[in-house]
Amino acid sequence: MNNESNCNSVSDVVLSTRVRLARNLRKYPFPARLDRDEKKTVCSLIKDALDGENLDCIDMETLSPVEAVSLAEKHLISAEFASNGTGRSLLLSKNEDVSLMLCEEDHIRIQIIESGLSLEEAYRKADRIDSLIENRLTYAFDERIGYLTQCPTDLGTGMRASVLLHLPALSRKGAVRNLTATVAKLGLTLRGSYGEDGEILGDIYQLSNQVTLGISEKAALQNLNSIALQIVTQEKQARAVLIKDEDFMDKIFRAYGILKSAYKLTSKELTNLISYVRLGAAEGLFDIPVEKLSALNAELQPATMNTKSEVPLTRSQRDIKRAERIREALG
Amino acid sequence: MNNESNCNSVSDVVLSTRVRLARNLRKYPFPARLDRDEKKTVCSLIKDALDGENLDCIDMETLSPVEAVSLAEKHLISAEFASNGTGRSLLLSKNEDVSLMLCEEDHIRIQIIESGLSLEEAYRKADRIDSLIENRLTYAFDERIGYLTQCPTDLGTGMRASVLLHLPALSRKGAVRNLTATVAKLGLTLRGSYGEDGEILGDIYQLSNQVTLGISEKAALQNLNSIALQIVTQEKQARAVLIKDEDFMDKIFRAYGILKSAYKLTSKELTNLISYVRLGAAEGLFDIPVEKLSALNAELQPATMNTKSEVPLTRSQRDIKRAERIREALG
Repeated sequence: MNNESNCNSVSDVVLSTRVRLARNLRKYPFPARLDRDEKKTVCSLIKDALDGENLDCIDMETLSPVEAVSLAEKHLISAEFASNGTGRSLLLSKNEDVSLMLCEEDHIRIQIIESGLSLEEAYRKADRIDSLIENRLTYAFDERIGYLTQCPTDLGTGMRASVLLHLPALSRKGAVRNLTATVAKLGLTLRGSYGEDGEILGDIYQLSNQVTLGISEKAALQNLNSIALQIVTQEKQARAVLIKDEDFMDKIFRAYGILKSAYKLTSKELTNLISYVRLGAAEGLFDIPVEKLSALNAELQPATMNTKSEVPLTRSQRDIKRAERIREALG
Repeated sequence: MNNESNCNSVSDVVLSTRVRLARNLRKYPFPARLDRDEKKTVCSLIKDALDGENLDCIDMETLSPVEAVSLAEKHLISAEFASNGTGRSLLLSKNEDVSLMLCEEDHIRIQIIESGLSLEEAYRKADRIDSLIENRLTYAFDERIGYLTQCPTDLGTGMRASVLLHLPALSRKGAVRNLTATVAKLGLTLRGSYGEDGEILGDIYQLSNQVTLGISEKAALQNLNSIALQIVTQEKQARAVLIKDEDFMDKIFRAYGILKSAYKLTSKELTNLISYVRLGAAEGLFDIPVEKLSALNAELQPATMNTKSEVPLTRSQRDIKRAERIREALG
């Protein structure tokens, strides 16, 4: 894979990389057909196989709903996994780059998150965990098909690799619809990060591989990487035009001013304002690392804020605290 | 007049005081019936009568339209006076607190502007100028009626005294309509400062005396002063309630953030944002003297900006420069 050397520039557009492997143990039916005790047995087996890895094992039954939703906000677990903890466990590294949902749709969902565009590294880490498990346990594997999974769309490599893209300029140009159609022909999916009202939040899109069958992991990753880089180039070109537009520049500066001064902010408004400021920072208008903005946005999602608070916060209290934190962080 | 001692508090609401005296010379018809040369003669007579006063004499015929409109923006002359300079002159003190329009509707319009609520002092200054002229020239005066003026609504004292009030809280409460009706019964007029689209700009209202006939200057000023103070009290009470409203507080802080960061600002938006910030400053949320905000708003009106620029500015250039100046001024 080429071009990953130009990290800074690519990171202005690619926020993070995720690689997920779906695996199942040969000896057990898929989780949907296991009762609570059987799920717990499967979780134990996998936990034991990764004994040396220094991963925290979180019994999902013991989490409060707020704690579970906070993990989902951070994309460490799925919303479905957060909503029902029965018999399930989560293995999580200290810095949250490695997470394994146990007994979600499949017995094992290994997930690696890396910042920026880093498919090779993310896959390497996932593959290593995968091998550690395979050394101790036997996967459901078919010579002709590959890894067997609950959902047929995962059959084969069981791998879903994705990159999170910040595409404010292409969105503004109305170019995302075409792009979505184009990447679909190349075996990829591009979709927005939707808010409650179906509106795309913060111009954030996820590009992921669609094909898992009849393609090697390496080929799938290369395909995704090369298309991600093409989109980065298109977005950068669109930004170069957009940034010369005075109305747009004004919007960026005002977004910054509002973040620095608002008395209250909803998480949705925060996400949208941060989108403008991130673009401004990437274009050199503000001296703020784009990673800091992503981290702030993640930290200030509702459930994550609640897990950090000693007393439960109302929505309005959160909005005020969120604004406070942003004012403080942007100095 | 009482209560003027509590200056700071009153100045949060009363931006400025104006006293205007309309006078005409007995020997000459009203300006509407004078030709250019006759007007110039009248102007000369008055200028000479105030020879020792160190007032600049501006021949309105020599001003560019932009310079004339800038004087109107600063309320030193009327819009009508700005639009037609033929035969007219303006006498103006260095600090612009004293201005005399010569051959506007009347031969002489003496105007004093003071900051805050200062009717007594403004009247004292106007009366002094008035006496200086009367020492040298004979006014059109009727023992029974008083000073004779072109417009019958000025007959008598020829005095129009007014205070400029910042009433964001009463406006928000929808209380201004009732107030307008109430003060009308007491011989006063309350009216908003209207923008081009008929919208009230920056919650600024002018309270002025309506009656000039059959009332002494002193009584008229006392009436205006006492009603102004009552409105100040009402506005302050409404502010105390409003400031506890989190949505409103958020608006104030955001207005401040936008002023500190916008890339461009129209004069109308500036006026409206400054209204919020002035209220915030008055309530102790920001450490900015309210006078500074008024001065900035005046300085950044379109024609006034153009008079200060070496090259003519387009509207869009002004909007950018205006935002620049505000960012700089608010640090």
